[in-house]
Amino acid sequence: MAPIKKGILERLSAGEVVIGDGGFVFALEKRGYVKAGPWTPEATVTHPESVRQLHREFLRAGANVMQTFTFYASDDKLENRGQTLKFTGAQINEAACDLAREVASEGDALVAGGICQTPSYLSCKSEKEVKAIFKKQVDVFLKKNVDFLIAEYFEHVEEAEWAVQVLKATGKPVAASMCIGPQGDMHGVSPQECAVRLVKAGAQIVGVNCHFDPLTCVEAVKLMKEGVEKAGLKAHYMVQPLAFHTPDCNCQGFIDLPEFPFALEPRILTRWDMHKYAREAYKVGIRFIGGCCGFEPYHIRAVAEELAAERGFLPPGSDKHGSWGAGLEMHTKPWVRARSHRDYWENIKPASGRPLCPSMSTPEGWGVTRGHADLLQHKEATTAQEMKHVLEMQKKAKST
Amino acid sequence: MAPIKKGILERLSAGEVVIGDGGFVFALEKRGYVKAGPWTPEATVTHPESVRQLHREFLRAGANVMQTFTFYASDDKLENRGQTLKFTGAQINEAACDLAREVASEGDALVAGGICQTPSYLSCKSEKEVKAIFKKQVDVFLKKNVDFLIAEYFEHVEEAEWAVQVLKATGKPVAASMCIGPQGDMHGVSPQECAVRLVKAGAQIVGVNCHFDPLTCVEAVKLMKEGVEKAGLKAHYMVQPLAFHTPDCNCQGFIDLPEFPFALEPRILTRWDMHKYAREAYKVGIRFIGGCCGFEPYHIRAVAEELAAERGFLPPGSDKHGSWGAGLEMHTKPWVRARSHRDYWENIKPASGRPLCPSMSTPEGWGVTRGHADLLQHKEATTAQEMKHVLEMQKKAKST
Amino acid sequence: MAPIKKGILERLSAGEVVIGDGGFVFALEKRGYVKAGPWTPEATVTHPESVRQLHREFLRAGANVMQTFTFYASDDKLENRGQTLKFTGAQINEAACDLAREVASEGDALVAGGICQTPSYLSCKSEKEVKAIFKKQVDVFLKKNVDFLIAEYFEHVEEAEWAVQVLKATGKPVAASMCIGPQGDMHGVSPQECAVRLVKAGAQIVGVNCHFDPLTCVEAVKLMKEGVEKAGLKAHYMVQPLAFHTPDCNCQGFIDLPEFPFALEPRILTRWDMHKYAREAYKVGIRFIGGCCGFEPYHIRAVAEELAAERGFLPPGSDKHGSWGAGLEMHTKPWVRARSHRDYWENIKPASGRPLCPSMSTPEGWGVTRGHADLLQHKEATTAQEMKHVLEMQKKAKST
Amino acid sequence: MAPIKKGILERLSAGEVVIGDGGFVFALEKRGYVKAGPWTPEATVTHPESVRQLHREFLRAGANVMQTFTFYASDDKLENRGQTLKFTGAQINEAACDLAREVASEGDALVAGGICQTPSYLSCKSEKEVKAIFKKQVDVFLKKNVDFLIAEYFEHVEEAEWAVQVLKATGKPVAASMCIGPQGDMHGVSPQECAVRLVKAGAQIVGVNCHFDPLTCVEAVKLMKEGVEKAGLKAHYMVQPLAFHTPDCNCQGFIDLPEFPFALEPRILTRWDMHKYAREAYKVGIRFIGGCCGFEPYHIRAVAEELAAERGFLPPGSDKHGSWGAGLEMHTKPWVRARSHRDYWENIKPASGRPLCPSMSTPEGWGVTRGHADLLQHKEATTAQEMKHVLEMQKKAKST
Repeated sequence: MAPIKKGILERLSAGEVVIGDGGFVFALEKRGYVKAGPWTPEATVTHPESVRQLHREFLRAGANVMQTFTFYASDDKLENRGQTLKFTGAQINEAACDLAREVASEGDALVAGGICQTPSYLSCKSEKEVKAIFKKQVDVFLKKNVDFLIAEYFEHVEEAEWAVQVLKATGKPVAASMCIGPQGDMHGVSPQECAVRLVKAGAQIVGVNCHFDPLTCVEAVKLMKEGVEKAGLKAHYMVQPLAFHTPDCNCQGFIDLPEFPFALEPRILTRWDMHKYAREAYKVGIRFIGGCCGFEPYHIRAVAEELAAERGFLPPGSDKHGSWGAGLEMHTKPWVRARSHRDYWENIKPASGRPLCPSMSTPEGWGVTRGHADLLQHKEATTAQEMKHVLEMQKKAKST
Repeated sequence: MAPIKKGILERLSAGEVVIGDGGFVFALEKRGYVKAGPWTPEATVTHPESVRQLHREFLRAGANVMQTFTFYASDDKLENRGQTLKFTGAQINEAACDLAREVASEGDALVAGGICQTPSYLSCKSEKEVKAIFKKQVDVFLKKNVDFLIAEYFEHVEEAEWAVQVLKATGKPVAASMCIGPQGDMHGVSPQECAVRLVKAGAQIVGVNCHFDPLTCVEAVKLMKEGVEKAGLKAHYMVQPLAFHTPDCNCQGFIDLPEFPFALEPRILTRWDMHKYAREAYKVGIRFIGGCCGFEPYHIRAVAEELAAERGFLPPGSDKHGSWGAGLEMHTKPWVRARSHRDYWENIKPASGRPLCPSMSTPEGWGVTRGHADLLQHKEATTAQEMKHVLEMQKKAKST
Repeated sequence: MAPIKKGILERLSAGEVVIGDGGFVFALEKRGYVKAGPWTPEATVTHPESVRQLHREFLRAGANVMQTFTFYASDDKLENRGQTLKFTGAQINEAACDLAREVASEGDALVAGGICQTPSYLSCKSEKEVKAIFKKQVDVFLKKNVDFLIAEYFEHVEEAEWAVQVLKATGKPVAASMCIGPQGDMHGVSPQECAVRLVKAGAQIVGVNCHFDPLTCVEAVKLMKEGVEKAGLKAHYMVQPLAFHTPDCNCQGFIDLPEFPFALEPRILTRWDMHKYAREAYKVGIRFIGGCCGFEPYHIRAVAEELAAERGFLPPGSDKHGSWGAGLEMHTKPWVRARSHRDYWENIKPASGRPLCPSMSTPEGWGVTRGHADLLQHKEATTAQEMKHVLEMQKKAKST
Repeated sequence: MAPIKKGILERLSAGEVVIGDGGFVFALEKRGYVKAGPWTPEATVTHPESVRQLHREFLRAGANVMQTFTFYASDDKLENRGQTLKFTGAQINEAACDLAREVASEGDALVAGGICQTPSYLSCKSEKEVKAIFKKQVDVFLKKNVDFLIAEYFEHVEEAEWAVQVLKATGKPVAASMCIGPQGDMHGVSPQECAVRLVKAGAQIVGVNCHFDPLTCVEAVKLMKEGVEKAGLKAHYMVQPLAFHTPDCNCQGFIDLPEFPFALEPRILTRWDMHKYAREAYKVGIRFIGGCCGFEPYHIRAVAEELAAERGFLPPGSDKHGSWGAGLEMHTKPWVRARSHRDYWENIKPASGRPLCPSMSTPEGWGVTRGHADLLQHKEATTAQEMKHVLEMQKKAKST
């Protein structure tokens, strides 16, 4: 029988660094198992080997958390995207739990059941209706006895609060993560206020994930921490950013970039960028440090390598990676061997090989408008207008 | 019992498009199973599930060829890199064959046994010695009954000829692929002459792989074709380029770029770049079209989608990909839905998100020197000098 | 006898747009008459034809103000730079006034006597001493009866106030312009507060010049205007920015960029960038719109062309410039003729032709440190430290 | 009475470096005296002070040649552009000669009368008609007794030969310069062949000017030299390139770039780029080294400073320029003083400050088509087609 593992809160309270995994949606899209657009996780049922393998790679890379691959797996989303014709939402969610548990048992990792924002909220359903949607996934997580719960990828703090309340009722530890940057949520609620509201709703861990590059996300969590501390509350902090450079984003993040989602390659972070991210997150006081869209296993390994001294060990996957390029000492060419040290990689400014391309883009979409200071003064109006616009566009799209 | 598949030469002679897989070394390095520097494939024994899964992803993406993951698996290389302490070269090579065959059986793919350049040749061993090294791997391929053989990643045409001669003796179809660009091999032998020599040595398929970006590789194969036709010979053509943009390379390709191998991310091709590559390769008359370092399964799928009309079908993996971004019609945001068409993606000039980085690099290493027209007039001298330098550096490295 | 021209305040009070000239120091450095480093204006005596010609070009371009070329022409600066060995400060300043008046008489332009920051202030001389330095130049301006006075290029609001007080005593209209961005002066005094203090010291026109690109300067003046209005005061506003793009600057502006002052070429604004600048400045309520370092006559002409409707006329120099590229209708090549319209030039994203160069730099110098929010909380300390450092470096430089 | 100066051929034969001036058309366009599109030099009559001043600046910068500002001053061009309504061609050309002579007398410079390609040739007039056009300008040059003659800016070698023949008849030394790159003239005649034909036609000096950046032009002249030497002929060599980086040009040079002529700013060479140019030109054996469009006086001064050791003296204008940034030793800020040395400026990679812009463009126009190897095999056809197209467009333009 396996020894009982330390829980997420015990680890964080003891000051341990907990390393998260990377995002499954983008990684499996590149591997051929997720469709960009719907972004649903039916691969847990149709191609379990692909999901299992990705879990294993993140485990080898040093991750202590196996998040169930249940992104956009709420019943309303799955129905909306036509996935429930073949499988029930319960089947997809249960398979995800089994896969995460199977791999977590192979190492020192916990299973986290994850829920995220719903179409029900965006189409203005009631609190009761939205919570009922969450409840369905949570019932699966309880049945499968996950180790803790994460409410992540919320653009509106109100919906995130509802999610936390549903998760909290289970008695499991609860983490809450919004997909916002330092400008705050889609109604302009600041990260500080978002964090306070989430802690009050019952989250023991708060932070952000997705939508922005690592340093921007760390900045947003820093603001959250300031808010929580100023309010005299206590929490642990988490961050799971993109593995894309997004210096040119608006409040809605990489969704608004013209390159989203099929031409983001030139923005992918190197492993050395990840060292800087991990160090910065650690300095700010964040102890649950992982990744989201764009992360590949080697990105997580770089996080684990940067924090090896703090954690006291290297991840298993480092047997295939000399720290800071040391493996190159065995390269055939002498001038490549000359690159096998930290100074070289820490300071490299990598070329894009794309002389016809710029270094920054101009974002599209409503985010652009909302970035203007003037409009932010009329936040409610703008958001209502935005919502109306979105609904009209959807109506138009359906009728044609 | 499975129906007997059409062989590689029958397919090519019938004018069919044969899609290759992508490179395993780089893909598995990112997944945590290959060490950059040694670049050896012991994962076939230590982590077979990771190799199997990558084969499966390329198969889903449309590949008709499963290359055995036997790169740098010659005994001299494995010994050199300390891998034979745990496993024999035969074990690694046999496991590679079994994995390739297992997945090939799940779809319409052939198994190709692959060999590549050896340390023995670089350290000036005799023809006999070098051929003996090749022979060991070939014996495994015969035992495992692969469908055809590929000699790939050769920088010197002489070594490639020796390899082809060893492969040819088996009676299996032989493909020969050099890692050269339009400037020719490391001694300045032109692609035209390389191709003629390889065909004369017995290769039925010739081409290039690795070291350069797709359009540069296609250009090199075009020159090969010109050479073969001018010599009144016949051959089929193959190309398996990098998935990195390398407009700033010298004759030795991406090895000389300062970003090699750990900061190449901004150079990764998008799927739309792959459409252009596949079309251009097809136009030039190349029918065996695959990939090498940097390719992920979605890159191969893009090749298969571009040539779907010519092949008469889409790859299995296209069930998770709307052609030219069509899947985005289901995206939540209206301005992202507006990107679901060919015009948008075909013309995008993706930003790097790296305003502090240039678009091109200055290559390092001997390739730089060798690129100078003046020095190319003293080719033999230069190469001898280079060899001496390399050996001296190696001596120095060992003694310290 | 020439008709008496409307004064600067009458024009601004009537809502007229007053167009300034461009900076002389950089323009004459490129023409060979100013030395970068000392930046002193002895060319007024040694090569008056070069100064006269530049005045004439700005007049033709539409400028209504001929600033005397008296930058860094305070006695302490000239002595410091060894210029008073040949000519007295009075000679240099008087010649500047004569040249400005001569050309102003050829069109609808006023003469503005200009003073700027002094080495005396930077080396901590007393208010009395610093004011005495200003007084010497002002005496020349009175003797030569300039039309109004400008105190410009001040990094510290305190020194600017002292300058305004000296100018105010003459009874002439006074403009005060600091070389600061939205972050404020070198001690962290905000643009709002700077403006209020300058108005209270007696300036009727306030604004910024130099150090930052046009839109950044306009933003800083906007903040000044907010400050003045909030304080219940009244003023006119001016802006005379760089003609260089500086998105990557710290609080001390382009001085800190690694390209300053000899590799700024890739940052030079196009005439079309100037249209955007002129429009934006006008929208914000600025009516005295000119230029500083980097401006060539065609840049000022572009400002005048953008505001031709508001002013009711085109500048004389437009006889050699079709608006928005209309002159190209006469070009030989048809595809160049196709560029003769606004849409084309308004949207062009000009390439640098420098694939090895990045799009942004990392600033050097103390400005970098001072940009950090943390340090800004210890402003006085930092500045004292900075001053000490500067003085030590100067001592060291002298002793070696 | 002034001492008689050494002639151009005596200087070149003695191995002296002769420094040319920069282009007047672009420099005076920025100053407000030339209209882009027509590009005609009527300013010699309307604003002689502006032309005189520019001559003086180039003289100070070190130029030994004052080219008469007679570009596009053939009668057919001036009529075409409506300039002969106010002044005769003779008036414009005579004024140009007087201005050049006046300034040449102030230093060690010769006067060169210049002619260039004509609309008559492009619209297929006869050799006799075209030569008659050249003759008119040459008559003025003889009357004004210029020191030597330059036929420059020819896209077609045939027209250049006709020009040389007309110039040769005067008995004055003749230089011939084409606006071509290494790809050759608009009919694909190689630089080697162009040079041979020009020498045979009577030119004692041959080279290229305009259309390409310095290193590309030097490369083209190098090919010319190879051609001349291989043919057993003798000549001196000249080069007067653009001051714009043009790595992305086709055979017709910067005309085809989308940025031509109003958004070329980011491509302007720094003075340090000019050092490299001057050195490279000198190494190749070119001794008449000057500039064309984009050159400002400080660019010519950099050429003179780079070759100061070879010439034995610095130009007069260097009194306002410390070599390799030495003048910065007097800058106020210590970190700017730290930039006062060669190493710093020689290796700087200047940022564009334009993160939304690419580093290279895609050329427009016929040049693009003509750049394709395939079409170059059908050169005559293409050019005929091009000519037809140009004429049709011109007809259309006139009728509307």
